[in-house]
Amino acid sequence: MPTSNRPELVAFAGQLADIARPLAMAHFRTPLGIQWKADASPVTIADRAIERALRAAIARRFPAHGILGEEEETVGLERELVWVVDPIDGTKSFITGLPLFGTLVALLVAGRPHVGVIEMPALGERFVGARGEDTRFNGIVCRTSGVTRLGDARLCATAPDMFDSIEAPAFSALADKVGLQRFGGDCYAYGLLACGHVDLVVEASLKPYDFMALVPVVEGAGGVITDWDGAPLTLSSGGRVIAAANGALHAQALAILSAAREPGSRLAG
Amino acid sequence: MPTSNRPELVAFAGQLADIARPLAMAHFRTPLGIQWKADASPVTIADRAIERALRAAIARRFPAHGILGEEEETVGLERELVWVVDPIDGTKSFITGLPLFGTLVALLVAGRPHVGVIEMPALGERFVGARGEDTRFNGIVCRTSGVTRLGDARLCATAPDMFDSIEAPAFSALADKVGLQRFGGDCYAYGLLACGHVDLVVEASLKPYDFMALVPVVEGAGGVITDWDGAPLTLSSGGRVIAAANGALHAQALAILSAAREPGSRLAG
Repeated sequence: MPTSNRPELVAFAGQLADIARPLAMAHFRTPLGIQWKADASPVTIADRAIERALRAAIARRFPAHGILGEEEETVGLERELVWVVDPIDGTKSFITGLPLFGTLVALLVAGRPHVGVIEMPALGERFVGARGEDTRFNGIVCRTSGVTRLGDARLCATAPDMFDSIEAPAFSALADKVGLQRFGGDCYAYGLLACGHVDLVVEASLKPYDFMALVPVVEGAGGVITDWDGAPLTLSSGGRVIAAANGALHAQALAILSAAREPGSRLAG
Repeated sequence: MPTSNRPELVAFAGQLADIARPLAMAHFRTPLGIQWKADASPVTIADRAIERALRAAIARRFPAHGILGEEEETVGLERELVWVVDPIDGTKSFITGLPLFGTLVALLVAGRPHVGVIEMPALGERFVGARGEDTRFNGIVCRTSGVTRLGDARLCATAPDMFDSIEAPAFSALADKVGLQRFGGDCYAYGLLACGHVDLVVEASLKPYDFMALVPVVEGAGGVITDWDGAPLTLSSGGRVIAAANGALHAQALAILSAAREPGSRLAG
């Protein structure tokens, strides 16, 4: 992106998070009754209200930019600058009253994420990443951990059912070798990785609006984030994501995930 | 317990939580390096410091009461009044920087839990239950949900690896029938159930210090909590716990868990 307006774009990403926070909280832990699966459930209302507000703010300020969101139609995906928003990441957390849901905002430049914000409305926490700059947690520079041995690593994933029959044994092979494995994190796990509390996040079935904002946050804190083949995450990535505190850990984890998926592997599906 | 000193005992349980909160926070998200598995890790230090402080406070105020804790030796388990404390429930959350760990305090009268506190230091939230009284969330009366259909229910459990080869298929049989299932809650899931955000919590491998405090919290909010056979939780319970928002949901879930474990069941191990 043009260097001249970069600070303005990073600040605007934060403003989008400012817009999302009260909208999410207005619907969090409101009475669900038996309506939580319905179209008019609080999470659905919050999802739509946030995406609508963010799209309006973007269109007003940067009408020439594209927009990719979870709920509504894509606008100008071929444009140089494209905003990617996920109004509520961690729907199950939101529905069960857990404060671990987040709003994700990314800015793509020529298809690559240059700015990323992980906003945690119920925790009052925000992670902001910008390519080439230090990632900040509530305004303070944060760094990934120095853990380089798999046996010392803390591994997170959102849920076992995100993995298909090929991915599940590969994830298990990795989980067997780390020091600690925990389910239930969504986008927050990547923020915790950026702050050095988690060393590996390995997931699958993610969409671009789930992972684009994570990239600048993880990379700006010293971490590595790619797909399971070690390739950069793009709009056409398959949804398998691995984030590691550093290159050494990333390489070891990637080797195990690959070996377990090779034809002929005892673990391959 | 004698009616005369009951309010004093409930208030004292809250004072124990007041003692635990700053001790937990002093060690939460402190630098772990590669030392988190060691004996001197922050979670181990916090665990021991909290239990030591709570035991000292109990011994000073109520020297005639018994004490059962996770870290140190049991004192007077045969006494009429016994305090049960779990300094850090949710160790994996604590280690990975997630604010979902809690401190649990229960008061047993003749072996049955009459007072229970779920204290969430990093969230600034507390659930207090006392037999025959309304459960309170941060001082405000809370109630379980009115969800009575399994297909509408939100089910939580801490992790899939808490279930053995008999329990796992029984849990899966239940998970297949609910509206939503989520891993990663520890004690907090029971507090969310008491507030109507979660409808079922089904777990195994729990110890008395993991579940005693949950009983008054869940029951005082209108919920039902037993072992997987529907029996009340006691010091000799096997560690299988089911909590439900109401009796109707409890009965349906129990029937599925039982059927799946019967000899001859296609699901039995």
